[in-house]
Amino acid sequence: MTQAAPMVEVWRGDFLESAHAGHAVVCDASGQIVDAWGDADAVVLPRSSAKMIQAVPLITSGAADAAGLTPAHLALACASHNGAAIHTDRVADWLKTLDLDDDALRCGPQMPDNRDAREGLIRAHIAPCQMHNNCSGKHTGFLTLAKHLGAGPEYIDAAHPVQVAVRDAFEAATGETSPGFGIDGCSAPNFACSLHGMARAMAQFAAAPPDSAEARLHEAMRLHPDLVAGEGRACTELMRAMDGKVAIKTGAEAFFTAILPEQKLGIALKIVDGSTRASECVIAAILVKLGVLAADHPATCKRMNAPILNRRKIQTGWIRPTAALA
Amino acid sequence: MTQAAPMVEVWRGDFLESAHAGHAVVCDASGQIVDAWGDADAVVLPRSSAKMIQAVPLITSGAADAAGLTPAHLALACASHNGAAIHTDRVADWLKTLDLDDDALRCGPQMPDNRDAREGLIRAHIAPCQMHNNCSGKHTGFLTLAKHLGAGPEYIDAAHPVQVAVRDAFEAATGETSPGFGIDGCSAPNFACSLHGMARAMAQFAAAPPDSAEARLHEAMRLHPDLVAGEGRACTELMRAMDGKVAIKTGAEAFFTAILPEQKLGIALKIVDGSTRASECVIAAILVKLGVLAADHPATCKRMNAPILNRRKIQTGWIRPTAALA
Repeated sequence: MTQAAPMVEVWRGDFLESAHAGHAVVCDASGQIVDAWGDADAVVLPRSSAKMIQAVPLITSGAADAAGLTPAHLALACASHNGAAIHTDRVADWLKTLDLDDDALRCGPQMPDNRDAREGLIRAHIAPCQMHNNCSGKHTGFLTLAKHLGAGPEYIDAAHPVQVAVRDAFEAATGETSPGFGIDGCSAPNFACSLHGMARAMAQFAAAPPDSAEARLHEAMRLHPDLVAGEGRACTELMRAMDGKVAIKTGAEAFFTAILPEQKLGIALKIVDGSTRASECVIAAILVKLGVLAADHPATCKRMNAPILNRRKIQTGWIRPTAALA
Repeated sequence: MTQAAPMVEVWRGDFLESAHAGHAVVCDASGQIVDAWGDADAVVLPRSSAKMIQAVPLITSGAADAAGLTPAHLALACASHNGAAIHTDRVADWLKTLDLDDDALRCGPQMPDNRDAREGLIRAHIAPCQMHNNCSGKHTGFLTLAKHLGAGPEYIDAAHPVQVAVRDAFEAATGETSPGFGIDGCSAPNFACSLHGMARAMAQFAAAPPDSAEARLHEAMRLHPDLVAGEGRACTELMRAMDGKVAIKTGAEAFFTAILPEQKLGIALKIVDGSTRASECVIAAILVKLGVLAADHPATCKRMNAPILNRRKIQTGWIRPTAALA
């Protein structure tokens, strides 16, 4: 197996304090590797970076159109949102249209990452509910599909028609037979593939014809960067910085994917140690390298060659991509 | 340079999802390496794992005794506390004895990690102050020394008598000339050394004669595990699990040190990527290996071979040391 490539350095003054290694693949629509670092054949769990694939059956089944879902709904289905009111209000409304409420979700409760939402709950002595879970849009998409299929409430079971459809969509997109799945933080199965397979899937999305499920999903993400993540988050800020021309999606344990429709390219990357600070730095560096993200945009500078500030806002160091990426 | 050694694996179901590599040294009082993984000569910033060394001049100068400091004060001087009332109340009282208040600190404000303290501030719409900073005990120790020396208020400047004394103590303990320093999260200089040097320093502490500054400091840490970190934290729980026989101290960017007085051994370790989940797993594994920590103690099981639970408390995987450490 090819070793992981050094990708990110964390400096404090004159000292290289920490470092991150990983694997990354840029792939074209024919499945050919355009650029790669580390091991393109590494077996990975793409976690939330696979949400746009998990949403494909919602459209191909006819469920999305039958339910009258808008691009905002589709963006939420692909989202790891931060539990702000703009996310949870929309999820609540969507559940109502299905005659369901928070109890139908199977993602579990999560304290919102959004500060206003979190502090509001704390001040009101209210525990977070499942709608606050960053995956609640994906799960409401699953419920929409389950209802359309007339399937039962335990939509996260691997044998449930919803997850069977997700696995089929995942294998079709990656062009691989999945070797299995892990249970995600939100309790849904998360299917494994090679990193090359995941980049191939993203390139398939990028080259998908207009009005296809894949095109509708990445368009929805690019149209609603605020719904895909939230204020201050990498996905939201970097998609805005690229004027919505590229869809990007983070995943837990330092996964990141990108869909470049104009270039018909897909990107998938995994930092071996699972550090988000490194995956954000690397996705920014690759997007800059491909000419779709400005190196001097504030959203880029926050993540690539970013200053590290201490409790008194004094710069103590910086985080930067290695020479191989820069 | 010797490569970092694979140290920790993060599994999700049947898949190795993430991995951590690092360097670790176990050293005896003569400075000889007893056991090592990775590169013993790696240059490191020990961050908060060096707090007991930074507190040595507080005692050797006579400042601690002149100010009537108790073991609880000394434990706080070595602490990265979580800003609970047991910590901040003591720091506030200590500052008062110096005729100082929060404004004299130079560590910057920090939202407490302790849930009750944090939510109390949020509900009262009060911003955290410098006493909540996890380093406020160390800084109050610096202020105590500065007053004793009749030195000025900017005690964090590298040329200030307090930091000159800290550097001298650091070089004496590690047996090395420090190649320089980085600025820490709390704005104090953090001196660099080799990992071997840091393990040697910990072994010097372990073998220090009764009533020496070094012995008084590790005794204070072992007597007050709750003051050194806080409820739920690794340092507190693992020191309790060892019945206070071993002093351990975490540092930012995945540093960890241990002082074993009965065995006259010192440990220093650094996870290359800076992940605390890995440094906690590795310190537990080495302490188990050395026979001073029970492998089946709940505090150990929480960090070594620990189950990973998702939002619904379903086990999705586990984190464990590699075969080389287990």
